[in-house]
Amino acid sequence: MGCSPLVLAIVIQQDPSDLAQRVMAGERRALAKAITLVESTRPDHRRDANRLLDSVCAAQKGAKSAMRIGISGAPGVGKSTLIETLGLFLIDHDHRVAVLAIDPSSVRTGGSILGDKTRMIELSRNPSAFIRPSASHGMLGGVANRTGEAVMLAESAGYDVVIVETVGVGQSEVAVASITDLFVLLVSPTGGDDLQGIKRGIMELVDLVLVNKSDGDLVALAERTAVDYRHALSLLRPKSGHPTPEVLPCSALSRTGLGPLWQTVADLWRDLNQAGHIEKLRQDQALEAFDREIETILLRRLLSSPSASELRQALGSEVRSGLIAPTSAAATLTNRVLGSASAQTGEYP
Amino acid sequence: MGCSPLVLAIVIQQDPSDLAQRVMAGERRALAKAITLVESTRPDHRRDANRLLDSVCAAQKGAKSAMRIGISGAPGVGKSTLIETLGLFLIDHDHRVAVLAIDPSSVRTGGSILGDKTRMIELSRNPSAFIRPSASHGMLGGVANRTGEAVMLAESAGYDVVIVETVGVGQSEVAVASITDLFVLLVSPTGGDDLQGIKRGIMELVDLVLVNKSDGDLVALAERTAVDYRHALSLLRPKSGHPTPEVLPCSALSRTGLGPLWQTVADLWRDLNQAGHIEKLRQDQALEAFDREIETILLRRLLSSPSASELRQALGSEVRSGLIAPTSAAATLTNRVLGSASAQTGEYP
Repeated sequence: MGCSPLVLAIVIQQDPSDLAQRVMAGERRALAKAITLVESTRPDHRRDANRLLDSVCAAQKGAKSAMRIGISGAPGVGKSTLIETLGLFLIDHDHRVAVLAIDPSSVRTGGSILGDKTRMIELSRNPSAFIRPSASHGMLGGVANRTGEAVMLAESAGYDVVIVETVGVGQSEVAVASITDLFVLLVSPTGGDDLQGIKRGIMELVDLVLVNKSDGDLVALAERTAVDYRHALSLLRPKSGHPTPEVLPCSALSRTGLGPLWQTVADLWRDLNQAGHIEKLRQDQALEAFDREIETILLRRLLSSPSASELRQALGSEVRSGLIAPTSAAATLTNRVLGSASAQTGEYP
Repeated sequence: MGCSPLVLAIVIQQDPSDLAQRVMAGERRALAKAITLVESTRPDHRRDANRLLDSVCAAQKGAKSAMRIGISGAPGVGKSTLIETLGLFLIDHDHRVAVLAIDPSSVRTGGSILGDKTRMIELSRNPSAFIRPSASHGMLGGVANRTGEAVMLAESAGYDVVIVETVGVGQSEVAVASITDLFVLLVSPTGGDDLQGIKRGIMELVDLVLVNKSDGDLVALAERTAVDYRHALSLLRPKSGHPTPEVLPCSALSRTGLGPLWQTVADLWRDLNQAGHIEKLRQDQALEAFDREIETILLRRLLSSPSASELRQALGSEVRSGLIAPTSAAATLTNRVLGSASAQTGEYP
């Protein structure tokens, strides 16, 4: 469940278009409520959430959009400190900053993942910042979609930099990349051959690598690490229309390197935006989110009865053991639950 | 369409369990027919295909399985020559070799993609080889599933090395990796900074890199290229339970390096198999294929009427323009086509 009964009771009193107006007027409490609404799993809330989102979409069309930045990195690399430091730096430079988090591995307990607000105390108290964990229930595609909705809402509330953080477990980086414009990987200084720190699937997502903790005794090591990452990235073909990703040392703790860091991010975003890549990317992402959500809804409908879920489990276990073919098992499941489709359709793709 | 009417007429005369028996007896024509059957888009053929596959699965359970090797590489890198040379080498060493191809970008015209048999003349004439392009129609997940079925069939027909080739367009490498045990990337010798040849998403799939054309004047360049790839791969975390991928020079043309190449592949496969990784991988792949096929069937059912397809197009175009939220559009599509689900289900994930 996404919300406590009390929170839901408050949410449901709100008319979706009124709430949309208040979100777009920049009311922080309205934004918090709106995100709670889109994360709710109740069908009536989902209907309200869709009305809310459509109001926001219709009103926002053509408006200046936020820079959507994904940030990932292994636990202990200093993500929270960097985001807090960067957030405060951006607010000093007249930005409004929203921080959202994807953590598909955690169980949500009433509102806070990883105690984000506790981790980013100074930023969370700043009136120009909005910090919010995002939904962790459900399938990963669903999580990305809900966090994507939270990004849209934060953007419509006037936050011009929206940071989506992930703890870097499993496929969550892919989910973050599917709802952001740029993907930043934060790494620690590490020595030479021992550098096997980048998960292989992450390389294709990366737009910028930051070597954190470049302070004190670690400055030289951080620079060597940066050289290694630069070399690794130079061997890979960049994303279409993108330059080879840059690698920058920084220190969240001593607050050094933030100027160059932000300049690099802002320049890259501006160049991509001017070349039309950001618009194209968002169109593609929107269509992917549409497809993901269709799949999520269809699967939920298929498995809505306990007997269907049990059949899926039973067939899945035979598939796993190699006793039946996966594709045949899928046909058995859908035919038994939904009836045979051959009468309706002439083609089987 | 997957088949000409004539081919279908022949296929349909065949009882699926009889066909399964003939496939498992190693009859080449039966295998060819069986693959044609699983690639057919007609519902009655699909039903037969499922019976065929289930017969094969039930009979094969516990039998020695083939080494399933994916091979990818850019056009011009010498894939066909390598596969032909390697295939003949393996047959000389008492293996039976099946070569299947995934090419989702091409339009299938009556049986042959890329003229595979023309490309691999000597191998295609050898009685211990079976060469077959695979289905290219439909969505990519569907393509992987059908080619995965062809792999199962070839394996059941006694081919103990099954090579799945892809031309390296788009997501086809991911599809190949989802139905094979090991993924081999073939590259050409290239110079230093100009090495940006690996598409970024490919690195995570690679188990072995072969630098082809290591012959004549190119031997030294091929070795330097190998060193560069080794360095790049050493910076990435290997797949779970795997060693860092090896990089080997070879020459398909002068037929050198095939011994070490095959030794490396065979040793790696044996080590992974003994550690239980191959079994685990195949179980995971089977469950993924099950899920992909469920999604494919559900989507096909949803879009089975022309009006549903048109609605999807119309909504997709509004989603693309940012006029409506993707998730809201998905709910609109499914509710209009299937009716509202809220009466049946209490939860919306």
